[in-house]
Amino acid sequence: MKTTVGWQADRGETTLRRVSFERRELRADDVAVRVDYCGVCHSDLHALHTHPADRDTPLIPGHEFTGVVTDIGPDVTRFAVGDAVAVGNIVDSCGKCAMCLRGQENFCHEFPTLTYGGTDRHDGTTTLGGYSREYVVRDRFTYPLPTGLDPAAAAPLLCAGITVWEPLRALGAGPGTRVAVAGLGGLGHLAVKLAVALGADTTVISRSADKADDARRFGANLITSTDERQMSAARDRFDVVIDTIAVPHDISPYVKLVALDGTLSQVGYLGPVTVQTLDLLTGRKKLSSAGSGGRSETAAMLEFCAEHNVTADIELVPSARVNEALDRLARNDVRYRFVLDMADLS
Amino acid sequence: MKTTVGWQADRGETTLRRVSFERRELRADDVAVRVDYCGVCHSDLHALHTHPADRDTPLIPGHEFTGVVTDIGPDVTRFAVGDAVAVGNIVDSCGKCAMCLRGQENFCHEFPTLTYGGTDRHDGTTTLGGYSREYVVRDRFTYPLPTGLDPAAAAPLLCAGITVWEPLRALGAGPGTRVAVAGLGGLGHLAVKLAVALGADTTVISRSADKADDARRFGANLITSTDERQMSAARDRFDVVIDTIAVPHDISPYVKLVALDGTLSQVGYLGPVTVQTLDLLTGRKKLSSAGSGGRSETAAMLEFCAEHNVTADIELVPSARVNEALDRLARNDVRYRFVLDMADLS
Repeated sequence: MKTTVGWQADRGETTLRRVSFERRELRADDVAVRVDYCGVCHSDLHALHTHPADRDTPLIPGHEFTGVVTDIGPDVTRFAVGDAVAVGNIVDSCGKCAMCLRGQENFCHEFPTLTYGGTDRHDGTTTLGGYSREYVVRDRFTYPLPTGLDPAAAAPLLCAGITVWEPLRALGAGPGTRVAVAGLGGLGHLAVKLAVALGADTTVISRSADKADDARRFGANLITSTDERQMSAARDRFDVVIDTIAVPHDISPYVKLVALDGTLSQVGYLGPVTVQTLDLLTGRKKLSSAGSGGRSETAAMLEFCAEHNVTADIELVPSARVNEALDRLARNDVRYRFVLDMADLS
Repeated sequence: MKTTVGWQADRGETTLRRVSFERRELRADDVAVRVDYCGVCHSDLHALHTHPADRDTPLIPGHEFTGVVTDIGPDVTRFAVGDAVAVGNIVDSCGKCAMCLRGQENFCHEFPTLTYGGTDRHDGTTTLGGYSREYVVRDRFTYPLPTGLDPAAAAPLLCAGITVWEPLRALGAGPGTRVAVAGLGGLGHLAVKLAVALGADTTVISRSADKADDARRFGANLITSTDERQMSAARDRFDVVIDTIAVPHDISPYVKLVALDGTLSQVGYLGPVTVQTLDLLTGRKKLSSAGSGGRSETAAMLEFCAEHNVTADIELVPSARVNEALDRLARNDVRYRFVLDMADLS
């Protein structure tokens, strides 16, 4: 066991405090990672506010981080001490079901082991996340961080990035396709950058006309969702709509933007959604959802991002300011992703 | 004007009575059709039970019929008197919107003119349907009935058939794909026959194990939806699930059957549907809907059906027994489609 430090919510608490805790001894296929940068995800906020008060295990959030390998188990061949690596929101899966065998460990039939708040498949302990200085992770779920990617700005690729990458790829976003991204936040701005880099004609749908400059900077147009004339003119226009809006909302206006045989993929809000079947019928439109990613696509995305120079627009803060970052995230006061600098935990 | 006879529901009534009424004078691009066979569709039942009591116009249902051309307007070149023809549930559209220009008149932005209960685009009258001896229809929405198709058993192709044909085609059903059809009724049995003829590996999902023989006769397997073991074993199996169940139902068990990146298309129940986004997420599954068809696909389907000998399994009854047929349809007591023989109206 190795003692490390991190930011923890005790039971019933939503404020994080600095704690010391133990990471497990390395198993044969484990990699120890010094966490340098960890993104602050909407899921972290959600976990903090739904963390059961009667649960014994504390919560340490964080599931998109980059760092450096500090130790390896005896069976590890893909990594060496000193390698730059990245870890996302899945750290294990059954490896045997149809989804795992297709490289979609995110859809593992036994449910993948989450990076925090998950249950370790070997010892049954609850996983503790990347808001910490050290992490121990199975080598299969550790990704080489390609040279050229800024490790701080790359951290959000591991959750926000892959979550929008998989639907963009599965839905064929690329040259000749028209992609709309609803909501320009952490997920949304990466969806826009990735869609543009994939060669798609890309449009942001936002309530705020003041995001037009950012949209343009990312290579996209902007439609203001509150402008009925603009929305009406865009009817049936987009082959792919990536809906990154993180709160419950009426999807009907966004379904109307989908082209014949096109798809609206929800990645932001993941609760139950009611859809008017006739909205889908009129154009054989599809409603889908996506989240997280499998190992092969995660690796492919990182290579693509290195090649096309895609990273998140981040606000880097010392990890000691994590509570402030979470408060501001709750108010959408960040363009576009907080990343915690873990150097202050050394 | 030409006097004809048909089966009409007076306002507030759900029972049809025989009436005489007038069809319009032929316009330049009109075709007069002697209706020989008209299918009895679930929509007809629905229309009868939602026909507003305070509406002046009576209701004459019927929107899938075959017959023979008896007269043509001066501009009609595609048809001659004596031609065998078929008419579906759309008799006009704007012809100018993006959907019409793509041959998807069923999704016309101005809404297509329905065969009954629609509003004629020229004179504003309410259209009266095919439960009648004569119909007058714009030539563009009249289809040649290919030689070799039994005109009685072909009638249901024009609504039930095209409604399942379009999603099967749009979703790529064919060799190497696995298609499930939920519900083996009027739409369902045609979905099965068409999927099999398209070369897909086809399975019926039905509550009734007693439909296994019919499923086999159509070239499909059967999974009993009430058998949890069977349903569980079929998880993530089907590229396409066509849900033809005509009443509100929980779609979650059917979404579970959809394969990675596959689609569940609802064609039976067309009200609001609530879906658990996580059900879609786990496999990037898609929920879609479809209904009716455009001119080009309707013509293509009829040719395909003639080539592959696909028609409906019907119970042919004299049109005077229409009320009995509707009552039995309401109880699902038909395998698999009633067709009215209009000869008794001469």
